[in-house]
Amino acid sequence: MARFPFSAIVGQDEMKQALLIAAVDPSVGGVMVFGDRGTGKSTAARALAALLPPITAIENCPYGCSKEESERYPDVCGSGPLRKRAVPFVDLPLGATEDRVVGSLDLERALRSGEKGFEPGLLARAHRGFLYIDEINLLEDHLVDLLLDVAASGENVVEREGLSVRHPAKFVLIGSGNPEEGELRPQLLDRFGLSVEVRTPSEIETRIQIMRLVAERESDPQAFSDKWAGEDEKILRQIARGKARLPKLVPGENLLRDAAELCLAVGADGLRGELTLMRAARALAALKGAKEVKREHLVEIAPSALRHRLRRDVLDETGSGARITRAIDELFG
Amino acid sequence: MARFPFSAIVGQDEMKQALLIAAVDPSVGGVMVFGDRGTGKSTAARALAALLPPITAIENCPYGCSKEESERYPDVCGSGPLRKRAVPFVDLPLGATEDRVVGSLDLERALRSGEKGFEPGLLARAHRGFLYIDEINLLEDHLVDLLLDVAASGENVVEREGLSVRHPAKFVLIGSGNPEEGELRPQLLDRFGLSVEVRTPSEIETRIQIMRLVAERESDPQAFSDKWAGEDEKILRQIARGKARLPKLVPGENLLRDAAELCLAVGADGLRGELTLMRAARALAALKGAKEVKREHLVEIAPSALRHRLRRDVLDETGSGARITRAIDELFG
Amino acid sequence: MARFPFSAIVGQDEMKQALLIAAVDPSVGGVMVFGDRGTGKSTAARALAALLPPITAIENCPYGCSKEESERYPDVCGSGPLRKRAVPFVDLPLGATEDRVVGSLDLERALRSGEKGFEPGLLARAHRGFLYIDEINLLEDHLVDLLLDVAASGENVVEREGLSVRHPAKFVLIGSGNPEEGELRPQLLDRFGLSVEVRTPSEIETRIQIMRLVAERESDPQAFSDKWAGEDEKILRQIARGKARLPKLVPGENLLRDAAELCLAVGADGLRGELTLMRAARALAALKGAKEVKREHLVEIAPSALRHRLRRDVLDETGSGARITRAIDELFG
Amino acid sequence: MARFPFSAIVGQDEMKQALLIAAVDPSVGGVMVFGDRGTGKSTAARALAALLPPITAIENCPYGCSKEESERYPDVCGSGPLRKRAVPFVDLPLGATEDRVVGSLDLERALRSGEKGFEPGLLARAHRGFLYIDEINLLEDHLVDLLLDVAASGENVVEREGLSVRHPAKFVLIGSGNPEEGELRPQLLDRFGLSVEVRTPSEIETRIQIMRLVAERESDPQAFSDKWAGEDEKILRQIARGKARLPKLVPGENLLRDAAELCLAVGADGLRGELTLMRAARALAALKGAKEVKREHLVEIAPSALRHRLRRDVLDETGSGARITRAIDELFG
Amino acid sequence: MARFPFSAIVGQDEMKQALLIAAVDPSVGGVMVFGDRGTGKSTAARALAALLPPITAIENCPYGCSKEESERYPDVCGSGPLRKRAVPFVDLPLGATEDRVVGSLDLERALRSGEKGFEPGLLARAHRGFLYIDEINLLEDHLVDLLLDVAASGENVVEREGLSVRHPAKFVLIGSGNPEEGELRPQLLDRFGLSVEVRTPSEIETRIQIMRLVAERESDPQAFSDKWAGEDEKILRQIARGKARLPKLVPGENLLRDAAELCLAVGADGLRGELTLMRAARALAALKGAKEVKREHLVEIAPSALRHRLRRDVLDETGSGARITRAIDELFG
Amino acid sequence: MARFPFSAIVGQDEMKQALLIAAVDPSVGGVMVFGDRGTGKSTAARALAALLPPITAIENCPYGCSKEESERYPDVCGSGPLRKRAVPFVDLPLGATEDRVVGSLDLERALRSGEKGFEPGLLARAHRGFLYIDEINLLEDHLVDLLLDVAASGENVVEREGLSVRHPAKFVLIGSGNPEEGELRPQLLDRFGLSVEVRTPSEIETRIQIMRLVAERESDPQAFSDKWAGEDEKILRQIARGKARLPKLVPGENLLRDAAELCLAVGADGLRGELTLMRAARALAALKGAKEVKREHLVEIAPSALRHRLRRDVLDETGSGARITRAIDELFG
Repeated sequence: MARFPFSAIVGQDEMKQALLIAAVDPSVGGVMVFGDRGTGKSTAARALAALLPPITAIENCPYGCSKEESERYPDVCGSGPLRKRAVPFVDLPLGATEDRVVGSLDLERALRSGEKGFEPGLLARAHRGFLYIDEINLLEDHLVDLLLDVAASGENVVEREGLSVRHPAKFVLIGSGNPEEGELRPQLLDRFGLSVEVRTPSEIETRIQIMRLVAERESDPQAFSDKWAGEDEKILRQIARGKARLPKLVPGENLLRDAAELCLAVGADGLRGELTLMRAARALAALKGAKEVKREHLVEIAPSALRHRLRRDVLDETGSGARITRAIDELFG
Repeated sequence: MARFPFSAIVGQDEMKQALLIAAVDPSVGGVMVFGDRGTGKSTAARALAALLPPITAIENCPYGCSKEESERYPDVCGSGPLRKRAVPFVDLPLGATEDRVVGSLDLERALRSGEKGFEPGLLARAHRGFLYIDEINLLEDHLVDLLLDVAASGENVVEREGLSVRHPAKFVLIGSGNPEEGELRPQLLDRFGLSVEVRTPSEIETRIQIMRLVAERESDPQAFSDKWAGEDEKILRQIARGKARLPKLVPGENLLRDAAELCLAVGADGLRGELTLMRAARALAALKGAKEVKREHLVEIAPSALRHRLRRDVLDETGSGARITRAIDELFG
Repeated sequence: MARFPFSAIVGQDEMKQALLIAAVDPSVGGVMVFGDRGTGKSTAARALAALLPPITAIENCPYGCSKEESERYPDVCGSGPLRKRAVPFVDLPLGATEDRVVGSLDLERALRSGEKGFEPGLLARAHRGFLYIDEINLLEDHLVDLLLDVAASGENVVEREGLSVRHPAKFVLIGSGNPEEGELRPQLLDRFGLSVEVRTPSEIETRIQIMRLVAERESDPQAFSDKWAGEDEKILRQIARGKARLPKLVPGENLLRDAAELCLAVGADGLRGELTLMRAARALAALKGAKEVKREHLVEIAPSALRHRLRRDVLDETGSGARITRAIDELFG
Repeated sequence: MARFPFSAIVGQDEMKQALLIAAVDPSVGGVMVFGDRGTGKSTAARALAALLPPITAIENCPYGCSKEESERYPDVCGSGPLRKRAVPFVDLPLGATEDRVVGSLDLERALRSGEKGFEPGLLARAHRGFLYIDEINLLEDHLVDLLLDVAASGENVVEREGLSVRHPAKFVLIGSGNPEEGELRPQLLDRFGLSVEVRTPSEIETRIQIMRLVAERESDPQAFSDKWAGEDEKILRQIARGKARLPKLVPGENLLRDAAELCLAVGADGLRGELTLMRAARALAALKGAKEVKREHLVEIAPSALRHRLRRDVLDETGSGARITRAIDELFG
Repeated sequence: MARFPFSAIVGQDEMKQALLIAAVDPSVGGVMVFGDRGTGKSTAARALAALLPPITAIENCPYGCSKEESERYPDVCGSGPLRKRAVPFVDLPLGATEDRVVGSLDLERALRSGEKGFEPGLLARAHRGFLYIDEINLLEDHLVDLLLDVAASGENVVEREGLSVRHPAKFVLIGSGNPEEGELRPQLLDRFGLSVEVRTPSEIETRIQIMRLVAERESDPQAFSDKWAGEDEKILRQIARGKARLPKLVPGENLLRDAAELCLAVGADGLRGELTLMRAARALAALKGAKEVKREHLVEIAPSALRHRLRRDVLDETGSGARITRAIDELFG
Repeated sequence: MARFPFSAIVGQDEMKQALLIAAVDPSVGGVMVFGDRGTGKSTAARALAALLPPITAIENCPYGCSKEESERYPDVCGSGPLRKRAVPFVDLPLGATEDRVVGSLDLERALRSGEKGFEPGLLARAHRGFLYIDEINLLEDHLVDLLLDVAASGENVVEREGLSVRHPAKFVLIGSGNPEEGELRPQLLDRFGLSVEVRTPSEIETRIQIMRLVAERESDPQAFSDKWAGEDEKILRQIARGKARLPKLVPGENLLRDAAELCLAVGADGLRGELTLMRAARALAALKGAKEVKREHLVEIAPSALRHRLRRDVLDETGSGARITRAIDELFG
């Protein structure tokens, strides 16, 4: 069954906005999604991946390298004809080992031919796409750390067991977690660009609408996809336009001051808060087709950019969100 | 000794109904059975599997693929003549490893011939049948998660150790657990479609009747099977009719509203509650030969569909069941 | 030194009776022995095994299959001449691994010849005999579960590491444990048919008699065996007569009612209590040469059949036994 | 440096007596030594082993089989010329694995020649000698259990990894432990025949005497050995006479009654208490050259035979010893 | 993207000074950085490494040996032409095993050719550069110990698994940690030469300046590097001059007395405090181009040299720093 | 850089004395050093090893056997020319496995040639030298036990995995530990001969002197070594004279009485206290060139010989030392 259309997702605006910003400017950093189970977190991420146009990749490359990348990484990607393939969406299994994630020595080849081959891992499969980690708080710290490192550098470097491999691994990292089931260490949370909250919708009409859509899709998946194709196409064009506009937008002195004052006011540790604010506000402006990055963009994205960087009760998002809103009111209101 | 006839099982109506609904529409999701030890939980599930007509499968296929599946999965299922085989019933052993469940590299073949072969696991054996997990609360979380993922997608995808295998794995997942021996995480419970309660019967006559049936069967198993064959045949026809009727039943606007209001009233997290209510009510209507899905179907199936999704005291089923009944009375009474 | 004669065991009547019942009708289920250390628990079980007449088995069969079994399991048991062998008695070592218990891949043969051979385990050796587990509470749960599964089905099915072996494994499971050293989970206890209590004898004369017998045997083992051979022979005949009479005994309606009422009165969870009562009373009647199964048989065996199925203080046998006796007095007294 | 002469050991009479009894009648069971560090526990055990005359064994047999044993175990012991060798004394290393203790598959031979060879373990080396376990309370339970099983049966049976080996392993098991560093489970303690207490001597003269002996030996080990050879020879003859007299001594009715009454009075669980009393009193009588086993022998050995079988404060030996003495006074005084 | 220019780092003067001192005199010992996340700790260390001129190394040497080293270690470094390579900067991954750190047996080569080859580890890669350990408090103690040993001796000696390798491994060890996330044992902390504190800057203008620089660099990395090349060049010359001046500076008697009195006053355990004070003050004087080592140099470097050696509240740096400052005021004020 | 000269070590007289005693008479047993970090514990031990004259060993022997040893152990040491080599000093790495310590099967040779070779371990390398264990309290108990066993017997016996190797391993065992970081079990502590305390020096002049020496050595290591060569030579001659005198000194009756009374007075468990006192007093007398062993020698060495054998607060050395001093005053004062 084809994936759920992104445009048919009801509500959850904050999560959808964060995903679109990450699509426009992946340098904003990964997206952390907090919230109830069964609220369509992975459905939305999968839908965005399915919405995007196919990528053009070297046909036999296990990493799905583009033509430029195949030249930059000649050791890992044999040249060859180009072919389109879907944007990858990798769902990290609970209990995945480091070997499965980063890749490992191809033991069978080593035993048979005496050559050290590299068996690409999930990072290789996620290149140019999305890596989704459900219940990231259950993953071991050193793996989260590793995933954040690779997501930040866009490259997976494997140097061990006599292997020395370096391959591109650019992806949007999306983690989800339920704060009731354990927390992520603040050190790791801080390295996510944005964090959003997802709640079970509380209006009856919204819930009926969702059931109706699901029932409609289950009875005829193809017709359902066709019906929403046009809306998805609009979103696709919005992303493309945002990407084009991005380099032209330069955040001004006032915006930087706003960012710094807001971070100081809410007491965010370190500097990732204001740097993310700056980048995310710019990406939002680009997505909205604005001519310059304005305070309104910063204000709109501030909860997603700062919520997970506040001390104490980091995971009591309501509290964090309220503190951010209050600070915005006092500073800019 | 042949399996116990499904129709000869005394009492336990809620569990039997849930199994029949899963047989009519597996998309309802797995069935979780809570209750006392020694109350015939696995007997009922085995009996349902034994009751169903044999499946037609490619003779040498280790997955038991149907003709259509053998075409969709040409890599794993060589074509060949078709032959009937019994509906599989797999009993997951306590302490099973991930390798045994999902399958693993066939080491012996790898060492002997240098080829990477796939050794199918228990998921392969359960295809087109039932996977029963006794005391599921003792299984490691990542395995439960994996089983729920595969049950939901109908496909087992193995990508590691240089293997890349994708084979069909459609089965009804049935878990049993005693809430006194530890709980399943709410995140995992929520992914089961239905949950039912089984209790030791409290009427003397029922208990005598069960002993009488067991004694009768132990003294002459064949005669016992023959005696109940007719009743089992009736149930079989009921399932077949239900399956045929299912696509024609479309839940109406009022039913969706009932589902949403009920979920809101009992405070179920996420949206799986109302989606399951919608699907299970429809399957129940189909099973009963109704012409449309009515509130009475929703009301009847509501405890099974919602009991395990309530916050707090999730496993105090009495409490959960009572809250659901009360909400039904207040809303629809 | 030959085993201690069964008939020379002083006292411990409840344990001896349970062992004889299991010898007459193994379908009653395993026997759990609770009690003090150094009271001859394993001596009695070994003595019963040594008392039984040798079995006739295919000479080279590693499982000791009978002629009928060799036809039913042609894959694991090559046909061949028949030969007598002693009834097996397997003492499960503390710390035994699952591989040693169920059998494993014969690695050496796999490496040498590239064939997958099966290395039979302790379950294979126990076929047609006894499997004794001292301090069963120290064994891992999944092993106890596995042993109970195989004991109940009479077959050991191994499907992993590319092995697919199914061999007969019919044995009487006997577990012993000291409730002061940790408990078995109620789920596992309930699956034992009978449980008995063993205490250090408190009469001086009994204790002197035991010492005298031990001293006598140590000074001349052969003479001692000869002296008791006649008594052992009588017990052997009693077992044989009981086995022959068993199929002719059908528990009547009143007996089933007695069983159900007693279980309800003491509050046993599930239905294994009354089913065991029914079977054990019948086996006891057969052992005693009775013409029908009477309430006196049920009353006599009730403590052994129910003691371990009571809630709370399951292992405080005194308490459990007293509750059962009291219920019997109130109901039937 | 030659071992310390047994006869030169100052004090520690209870331990020396227990060792001599075990030398006369190993069926009494192992000896458990409780006490302070640095009090010569292992020195005494080593000294006794060194004192005994060499054994005559098949020259190339890894088990040191006698001629009779080589005939009873033809599979493990090739016949060959006889040669004398010292009585073995094996010191079980802390952290020894089960493989090292019972023996294991000879992997190297399996890999090279494809044959399954057996690599004898420490049990094989201890055959016909002593197995000493310092700080036995630090050993894993299943190893202690295994050692006690083999010590009791005189045979090591290895059935796993495709191996099926049975070799003689008769040895006196000696364990030492400091009750302040953790206890042995009562189940295991009960299986030791005797237990003795060792204390740092409290008289100045004794301590000076020990230092003088140690200094003397360190300055000229050979002269020291020569000086004590005569005393050691006397002890050797005493053991030999005791062994010869043993079969002629039969404990009478009164002695058995004394044993039973004493065990009942002190409340020892199980029957190992009186059986050990009976055996140890007989061995002591034999060692002392008595014509019959008398109450005085029983009284003398009672603390060693019962101290470790008392409930509560099992390891508070002072307490246990005092309770035994008091009971003796009340019963026989 | 090229590394961030060292001279463009805003604030964080104490950390930058410690890194420069370590560059001038690595014998001062490693640098431990305590502080908030997201404050550019690893950015500064990487920037310093990138700033330094390339090293000249034997072309094919896996250790990057200089010509002199290739002569001192002929076994590990084949001679060959010299070539320039960048100063290494190794980022120790969380969860790195000892094998990956020290190097390991090259299994593949051993299996293929029967030769024991050495697979160099991360210590080999760090030679002549920097080894950075983020969140060092999460690393196992024995690895931290090993890293400190090698850093102190400048040599990695591997003697195990039949390997006997000794290769140069001179590097500046830099650890970072957040005291809120667990402490390093005092024994290990004491072995770091210097420790510095990093805080999130609290002035708005500083924070705006940092954002401006980051934005500027992200929009045109090359232009940004070019712009700061001159400043970086100045720092490079300062380091070079400091290195040249170092051997000429001899700390005088008064300085040693100051160091001893200060350490005694603050109560530092051991003598590493005053030895580090002496070395670091000298290196600071060299860096500043001073003609002699003065009290002002000692006073300036004292907090970095002593903060982590104080008893109690070792990681409450504020407290430690204040105690040091107070002691300086009382002694020298 | 050459090792620090032993004679240039400032203060720490108790430790230096214990090391010299162990050099004169290794049968005194190992030395345990308690104390602050950074006080030169390992420096002193290394310095003593470096001070001793080279040993003469069979050139190719991996154990460094002397000519006599090569004859006593012909299996492990091929004969060959003699050559001088430095006294070994082995620093046991934290986290060393038993295999690395005792040696292991040479797997590579076994796989390649089918022969069982022995890969010598750290015990082999320490033969005829020193084995230093920093933070011995962090080592696993069974390893400490093993090291003490080998140190006491002077031989390493490896019998496992089909290996049967016995090689000489005579070394002085030196352990260091900080009582604040965990204790060694009393059983293990008691087996060290001497224990000493090391403190950070509290006099300013001492601390200045140490800094001056360190600075002097760092600026010209060779000159520093040359300057102290004469002093080191004197110590060397003192050790040689002590060794020669040792056999001539016999502790008299009075000395033994003093030793026993002191041990009784302080309440040391076991007899190792007075035996060590006797041996250490003799070695001290030899070292000092005395003609007989006097009470003053015993009194001087008593704290080192007894401090670690006192009950309660074993590691509160101050307390232990004071109790010993008080007892000496009362007894001999």
